[in-house]
Amino acid sequence: MRYELYYWPSIQGRGEFVRLALEEAGAAYADVARERGTPAMMRMMESGDKPPFAPPFLKAGKLVIGQTANILLWLGPRHGLSPKAEAGRLWLHQLQLTVTDFVVEVHDTHHPLGPSLYYEDQRGPARKRTEEFLGQRVPKYLGYFEDLLKGSGGAWLTGRRLTYVDLSLFQIVDGLRYAFPRRMKAFERRIPGLVGLHDRVAARPRIKAYLASERRIAFNEDGIFRHYKELDT
Amino acid sequence: MRYELYYWPSIQGRGEFVRLALEEAGAAYADVARERGTPAMMRMMESGDKPPFAPPFLKAGKLVIGQTANILLWLGPRHGLSPKAEAGRLWLHQLQLTVTDFVVEVHDTHHPLGPSLYYEDQRGPARKRTEEFLGQRVPKYLGYFEDLLKGSGGAWLTGRRLTYVDLSLFQIVDGLRYAFPRRMKAFERRIPGLVGLHDRVAARPRIKAYLASERRIAFNEDGIFRHYKELDT
Repeated sequence: MRYELYYWPSIQGRGEFVRLALEEAGAAYADVARERGTPAMMRMMESGDKPPFAPPFLKAGKLVIGQTANILLWLGPRHGLSPKAEAGRLWLHQLQLTVTDFVVEVHDTHHPLGPSLYYEDQRGPARKRTEEFLGQRVPKYLGYFEDLLKGSGGAWLTGRRLTYVDLSLFQIVDGLRYAFPRRMKAFERRIPGLVGLHDRVAARPRIKAYLASERRIAFNEDGIFRHYKELDT
Repeated sequence: MRYELYYWPSIQGRGEFVRLALEEAGAAYADVARERGTPAMMRMMESGDKPPFAPPFLKAGKLVIGQTANILLWLGPRHGLSPKAEAGRLWLHQLQLTVTDFVVEVHDTHHPLGPSLYYEDQRGPARKRTEEFLGQRVPKYLGYFEDLLKGSGGAWLTGRRLTYVDLSLFQIVDGLRYAFPRRMKAFERRIPGLVGLHDRVAARPRIKAYLASERRIAFNEDGIFRHYKELDT
């Protein structure tokens, strides 16, 4: 089956967690808004009786699935990116939802006063929020995943088989490096396991080819991970 | 099976979405931290090889499930609170994850600079964030659910059968009324469907008994929905 991924065409954003899974799986998919323009995505959002609240969403035959973690929950067992047994799938989904929570907090660093205002209109609060984020929240979240990895008994977060959560953790480390290069450089000493995991994901043949291709959108200041020099102090 | 729910004992918080589902289902459960104290919860969080990142989590036999929406995903089909077919379960979970996103934004109204600081240290930014929240975000989210309800062809969000998402929407309306009574009074004219749904949930025998019992913790200023008069303008 050829999937259709619907997401904003100019950012990695939340869609990137799905793109990485599709790429690692070697799945055939169209990145619809990139190939056919944003109006094609908007039409899909406004049609049908089950409209998603926001992108990303994935069309798989007649099924339209919204919410990043929900898409991965569905894709995982179909492409060898999650266990098939229920307990394993639930645990993995729980971890992905924890990644989701973290991603919201990443976004809040540059938009503490809300998503409808420009960054330029909330620079002061952004600095305070980022300070708290880098000082408290990054160590808490990444420390949690680092500990799980240490105890996993394998190269990946849940053991000897790579899952979609490993791909998402690659993206988290990659994004934090882009957004906060100075602070991450110092912090990475505390998460050697996750840094290793990041590198192992980046070296996987399909991911490596994807990252080198034009399909990988560059990080930029419209996405979730944004580099503002004044926040990286 | 008697479940064990682990959540902070003095707030409704995210645990309330699970409590409402357990109560409507007539399920037997212990609200562990309320009955045995918070240390019993902390011990569970620090033990085992699959520690949850944060409460709530539910113990069901040997299974420990974390993340509110994940718990509901699991409980739903077991207690007649969601469809059993995959497409229906995914759609319902997608809606619950949209509720989850909204709940984060509710929390951000009083904590725009982050969860580690006190409200008293972020009053100015809280006022700005709340303005944006009430002006832009509440209409967007509640308008989305109102439209779905209109098109559902039944009394409930997804049709003629009540699901856990209906219980969560009851909680959303109830919480917004508590936090922003003045603004909600004016806004409710725009969401007559959701107001009706709220009332129908509140009138269900088990929910009615629950709300009148001591098991229902009162809203307060430690939870997600907080009433600060200066934010409700």
